[in-house]
Amino acid sequence: MGKWSEEKGTKDMTTATNGVNVDALLEAREVLKGAPEAAQFTWRASSKWQHGVHSEITIQNYFGLGQEQSHKEESVFQADHPEVFAATDNGITPIEYLLVGLASCLSAGVASVAQNRGIQLNSVESVVEGAHDIRGILGADSDVRNGFNDIKVTFTIDADASREDIEALVAQSQKRSAVFDALTNPTNVTVEVA
Amino acid sequence: MGKWSEEKGTKDMTTATNGVNVDALLEAREVLKGAPEAAQFTWRASSKWQHGVHSEITIQNYFGLGQEQSHKEESVFQADHPEVFAATDNGITPIEYLLVGLASCLSAGVASVAQNRGIQLNSVESVVEGAHDIRGILGADSDVRNGFNDIKVTFTIDADASREDIEALVAQSQKRSAVFDALTNPTNVTVEVA
Repeated sequence: MGKWSEEKGTKDMTTATNGVNVDALLEAREVLKGAPEAAQFTWRASSKWQHGVHSEITIQNYFGLGQEQSHKEESVFQADHPEVFAATDNGITPIEYLLVGLASCLSAGVASVAQNRGIQLNSVESVVEGAHDIRGILGADSDVRNGFNDIKVTFTIDADASREDIEALVAQSQKRSAVFDALTNPTNVTVEVA
Repeated sequence: MGKWSEEKGTKDMTTATNGVNVDALLEAREVLKGAPEAAQFTWRASSKWQHGVHSEITIQNYFGLGQEQSHKEESVFQADHPEVFAATDNGITPIEYLLVGLASCLSAGVASVAQNRGIQLNSVESVVEGAHDIRGILGADSDVRNGFNDIKVTFTIDADASREDIEALVAQSQKRSAVFDALTNPTNVTVEVA
């Protein structure tokens, strides 16, 4: 793990090249303080059942900054159950998508905070593990919850910073992570039939 | 929306061809009642930061039924922030992956419950919408949470069943959904630096 590069002498916010446009984010923060309606986003996924427990999910459009927006490309995902559940394994299991979201949200946070603090990242890797007692979803034991028992995230980071500074990046990332909040705190979910 | 097919007269568990192996799931339920250790799964995602807030996430292996298991293929996902966040939009936003998981988990549940009840599904579509006030993640207002404000799921289902029976499928799917539980109830998440 690298040290804070000594030739720079002091932390210079402009020298880290992690690729995050922090100036734009800080400007958005200020603008949205005075325009809370523009900060109201709606993210959307459309799912189409295929066969068995296999579904195909598409994401392209969302609402934000007061108008419809579009990702530059449509993204299509397959979700299924694995063969050990007597299914066709045509994609990862739905619950695994939560781990994809958590890993990527925390990593984006690490990169953003590092950029803001002028810390050069060399590599950021993480492994996310979700412990899951499947007796819940199978209805084998009504005392077992359906979701994860707990989730563990382990980061391996090479950056031009002390271990203490790296740990502070990871801690700050959790404090601003949308997915970390969504998994650690409850959200109201309404399900309707059209 | 079709009616329960009249030529069959009564519900026959063997006639629905939704593709879910309910017999195997019911057998697993019974076996795991007496073998709780085999029901302990660990799902895993590995993330590698690319540049900016873009990460690549890989899923292949998991632990379950007392041993290491593998999906038949490796799945690779891109996560990024959209251009309106001054990012490169090389994949969907991390929080959108939660909607992929929710849509697919509830759809898998609908298919499984329908199979168990002998209800033939013709099509199952859903739209999942997550309302998100981005002032939270931007740090523009400390009273705004980082995650979703709320999530709404709307199913459109064509099945050989009454509307009442279809609504009952969707309700039962929520009761056994891993992702619905993970989003509506808190989970402990531990984050460490290796």
